This record gives sequence, C-alpha cells and structure tokens, in this order.
Amino acid sequence: MFTDDYFMNIAFQQAQIAYEKDEVPVGCVIVHNNRIIAKAHNLTEQLNDVTAHAEMQAITAAANLLGGKYLIDCSLYVTLEPCVMCGGALTWAQLSRLVIAAEDAQRGFLHKGLALHPKTQIITGIMAEESALLLKNFFKSKR
Amino acid sequence: MFTDDYFMNIAFQQAQIAYEKDEVPVGCVIVHNNRIIAKAHNLTEQLNDVTAHAEMQAITAAANLLGGKYLIDCSLYVTLEPCVMCGGALTWAQLSRLVIAAEDAQRGFLHKGLALHPKTQIITGIMAEESALLLKNFFKSKR
Repeated sequence: MFTDDYFMNIAFQQAQIAYEKDEVPVGCVIVHNNRIIAKAHNLTEQLNDVTAHAEMQAITAAANLLGGKYLIDCSLYVTLEPCVMCGGALTWAQLSRLVIAAEDAQRGFLHKGLALHPKTQIITGIMAEESALLLKNFFKSKR
Repeated sequence: MFTDDYFMNIAFQQAQIAYEKDEVPVGCVIVHNNRIIAKAHNLTEQLNDVTAHAEMQAITAAANLLGGKYLIDCSLYVTLEPCVMCGGALTWAQLSRLVIAAEDAQRGFLHKGLALHPKTQIITGIMAEESALLLKNFFKSKR
C-alpha cells in the first residue's frame, strides 16, 4: 500500500488544492516511517510571501513535529522539481529521500546543476505527466 | 547618515544578538526609502528549523509590511554572503539591492556560481572583517 505512487498521489491532491486557490499548483508531503508528518501546497499568493513554497512549509512543519531540524529517515514527495531555494533548504535539512514528479527545466535545482546533501537519494518521474499537465493547464488559464 | 556602513552596522548588531543566543552569528536588515522595514538574526537552533536564516525571516516580514511579495526598491544588508536557499528566495523576491559583508567561500550562492534576479545590484565587502571575525570566534568556541 505505502508505495511511492501512493504518497505522490497525496502530494498531487495538495497541488490540486493549490490550483483551486489560484496558486501555482505544486504540492508535497513528508513521510517518516510510512506516516505522513507534513503536507503542504504552494501559498505564495495568499500569503504574499515568495518563501511560502510547498516544500518550505512542509520542512518547517515536519521539523516541528519531529522536534529536530534534520529530516533523517524522511521522504519528501513533491509534484515539481524543487527550485534553488527549496533545494537549498532540503540540503540543510539533510533529507534522506526526495521523490520528484515533474521536471522544472527552467528553475529546478537539478537543472541548475546543484546537488543536495550527499545522504539524499533522489527519485524522479513518479506521476510526472499528471503533475506537469496540472501546471500547464494553470499557466494556460493565466494567458 | 544613511550610508551602507550605517545599515550594515545594524545588521551586525543582529549578528551579535545571534551570537549571544548561541546561534551561528548572521544578521540582516531590509531598508526601503531609508527606513528599516525588517531586521532579523539567524534562529535555526532556537526554532529547530533550517529555514530560519536571518534573510528568510526578514523577507517574510518585509513583504508582510509592504503588502506585496516583491522587494522592489529595497536593500537587504547581511553580514554573511547568503546561502543557496536564501539566494533563491532573494531571486524570487526580485530584491533591488543586496549588500554583503563577509564572503562564504563554502556555501555562498555567489561562490556556487548562482546569479540573483537580473534587477538586483550586489555590493560586497562592507564591514567584512568584523563580520567574518564574529563567525570565526563563534566556530572556535564550538570546537
């Protein structure tokens, strides 16, 4: 039951909530021992805050719940490749495992040639098409 | 009166407050029309949160005060070259002017070859020695 598809689907639901709020539709969840300890979606417009990406909110919430700032034995599922800001935050957090849906060729930290913490395993391509399509539809509706 | 040295000195005072709290001593202020609209120091230990760098807190506070997420006509003074996470956040914020004290050859976004928003002017070296010495003393006390 607790597969990467299962958890990415919950991250995707978060992205759909963002879409309904007229936010760039990106969602994520953080999982620790098969338990979801944080879920979040992008809220930069509603909060008027460029730092309110889904990942940043989830990192803060998960660390708060764990009582420590390092995301050891945690997996973060996110529907879009993290940007430089979020990649930097995940590096500081020493995340164990990052699962990415869609690529971000323009602003993704991997596409900028940045590495995460050496401990972090990176998996890409889970639910990539649905996640990319949701973003594409969002930006199309803005034109 | 409102020189770069004047504002960096206030950022440095924030770094000193961090030092006294046993936090990595980095401080910053954001200035808009010669008025300080945010000041902050690193609080990653106290808040158990890797995202609680001085710059991140100041960006959120300044945007809240300005009522918009872009830091147009704002200068951010910081005692240490921002990391990748903070550099990414400043890029999203379209900051007008970044004034840096000490360099961070290991983790600084400039040293990682990253650029900020094309609109952002970057000035380095203001109060660099004092700021670097405060950090050096902090890490020496930890050994």
